[in-house]
Amino acid sequence: MIRKKRTRLPTGQARSAAQSLAFAPFAFWAAIAMRDQGLLDALERAGAEGLSEQALGEASGLSTYAVSVLTDFALDIGLIERNGERLALAALGSVLLNDELTRVNMDFTRDFAYHGMARLPEALAEERPAGLAHFGPWATLYEGLSELKDPAASSWFRFDQFFSERAFEALVPRIFERHPTHVVDVGANTGNLASRVLRHDREVQVTLVDLPDVLALAQQRLSDEGLADRIRLHPAQLLDPALELPAGADAMVMSQLLACFSEPEIVSILKRAVSAMGPETRLYIIELFPDVQIHDAARYSLNAISLYFTAMATGNSRFYRRDQLLPLLDQAGLKLESEHEQIGQGHSLLVCRRQD
Amino acid sequence: MIRKKRTRLPTGQARSAAQSLAFAPFAFWAAIAMRDQGLLDALERAGAEGLSEQALGEASGLSTYAVSVLTDFALDIGLIERNGERLALAALGSVLLNDELTRVNMDFTRDFAYHGMARLPEALAEERPAGLAHFGPWATLYEGLSELKDPAASSWFRFDQFFSERAFEALVPRIFERHPTHVVDVGANTGNLASRVLRHDREVQVTLVDLPDVLALAQQRLSDEGLADRIRLHPAQLLDPALELPAGADAMVMSQLLACFSEPEIVSILKRAVSAMGPETRLYIIELFPDVQIHDAARYSLNAISLYFTAMATGNSRFYRRDQLLPLLDQAGLKLESEHEQIGQGHSLLVCRRQD
Repeated sequence: MIRKKRTRLPTGQARSAAQSLAFAPFAFWAAIAMRDQGLLDALERAGAEGLSEQALGEASGLSTYAVSVLTDFALDIGLIERNGERLALAALGSVLLNDELTRVNMDFTRDFAYHGMARLPEALAEERPAGLAHFGPWATLYEGLSELKDPAASSWFRFDQFFSERAFEALVPRIFERHPTHVVDVGANTGNLASRVLRHDREVQVTLVDLPDVLALAQQRLSDEGLADRIRLHPAQLLDPALELPAGADAMVMSQLLACFSEPEIVSILKRAVSAMGPETRLYIIELFPDVQIHDAARYSLNAISLYFTAMATGNSRFYRRDQLLPLLDQAGLKLESEHEQIGQGHSLLVCRRQD
Repeated sequence: MIRKKRTRLPTGQARSAAQSLAFAPFAFWAAIAMRDQGLLDALERAGAEGLSEQALGEASGLSTYAVSVLTDFALDIGLIERNGERLALAALGSVLLNDELTRVNMDFTRDFAYHGMARLPEALAEERPAGLAHFGPWATLYEGLSELKDPAASSWFRFDQFFSERAFEALVPRIFERHPTHVVDVGANTGNLASRVLRHDREVQVTLVDLPDVLALAQQRLSDEGLADRIRLHPAQLLDPALELPAGADAMVMSQLLACFSEPEIVSILKRAVSAMGPETRLYIIELFPDVQIHDAARYSLNAISLYFTAMATGNSRFYRRDQLLPLLDQAGLKLESEHEQIGQGHSLLVCRRQD
């Protein structure tokens, strides 16, 4: 379904693509069943020779009926292929089974996003994460994160961390190029980046800024790791325009933070960052820009995930395009000092200082 | 997502297809929003020149943010295309807007199937329509049809009728080639076929066999049409092996009936049909066979819909492959007299008589 070229589809092909879209949720669940009920796994073990429907029934514990109805559609969506009377794993099925990014994304949709995404039309019309009602009565997802139950919680956190971990790996050495002694992590979440920063340098102090409930999770985690003596907590609702950010840092970090806010909110947060920055402070912004991705599939995924921000996280934010975000930095009084594309998992790093 | 050839995808392409599958439900709802919130419509009116994001916002009543987050993904799934700074309708978007089959299928997924399909894995494991719990505490969908509420009810009935109407058009003249005076419609549903048969010939009598609640809807409808004086009602739970079918008919019809039953149930029903048939009685069976479709998209759709039978209708039935159904006719004591492919909307008609 990922379009590469801007060519018009012939009507027959478009009609075919339309049926694929109409039954797209069916394809999703068929893929989940093939993966979670052991069919892909059994087929991988069987190798190129494949398995009969009967053997697949024995391996999965499913009835002859269930195997036939599921595998007939799995053939259509290309998870498996026919090898005479047998069925064998296709490349797509192998990716579903073995590729970590794919697993994280599928679990996110399965456990967290599926039902709430049905409220997308309403969310778009009202700029409100209407789909969040599936889990709780929160105005934004971030208010409810600490109350989210499994499996939604664990799949959401794995999804969130999969992307951020790869960005952090690339980010931490860059921050320390300037030998900071005090780092302010704005939107510290559960302390993943703080933990990396604190472990990278035995002297550095980190101030974590986030919602109180989220900071409680971060504090617990950093205590468990024996790092809590070098942290300060700055509980804050960033949406409050009166909230000041901690001053005097050598480095401020906003990693995948701005995607959680609307454009006017971003300008407000960045202005407060500018007020807290000295002339030598550097602000490190990490974002995922759909418009600078190398692979079509990466752009597709980011634009899809943006609709989760709409329907289930904030109602008014997204993975911004680079051409949408850069003017906001300027408006807030920041100067872009350097820009690094494709760090981490398709992330961009923007290093900024005050406009002086 | 519809696979045509049995070629292995290169891993990069498979990884890309996997993300498309992981976010398939997002693509579905983005398409619904583009269609239902007036964006596709506005773009069609604008023609090849297209519209700016701003003009699209004015036409749809959506904010600049909502238009940008939705159209960025709509570009990725190929509903629209870029024309310089403007956006224009692509062939796929046009099909979503104008093709009736596509609209019926999308509405079926939107209003009826979406949430229940999430129970597919459970339904496969237990051969039970677990997803039906979304609507009511029924053992099968057919028990609950008369209680189903809108919009689920109207979208389900439109979906059901879209397929059957086209089959009936082709079927009725064939039935009357043998000048029947008494037709038994097994699985008469809400009387669509009975109505056509009664209007086709002013003398013919029709006996309708179905669940009591469904027959009540059929009777009302045929009364409204002034046809009720030539009908008999035969309320019946076909799953009950003791239930006899009405004898003495010239023609018995089972139109899209067998897909609602498991293989052993089909044999049981057909055996009872044989007991009720005389040597001159003909049984007209209409089914949709995924394995004799001309178009890949038709096979794909039928195999998808089969999973709705699993998850939300019966738990143990499907659009059977021709090679699955034909042996059951023989087992039940029927002889296939003639077979007609591609009548209606990809339907097959099997004309059978008793094995004597």
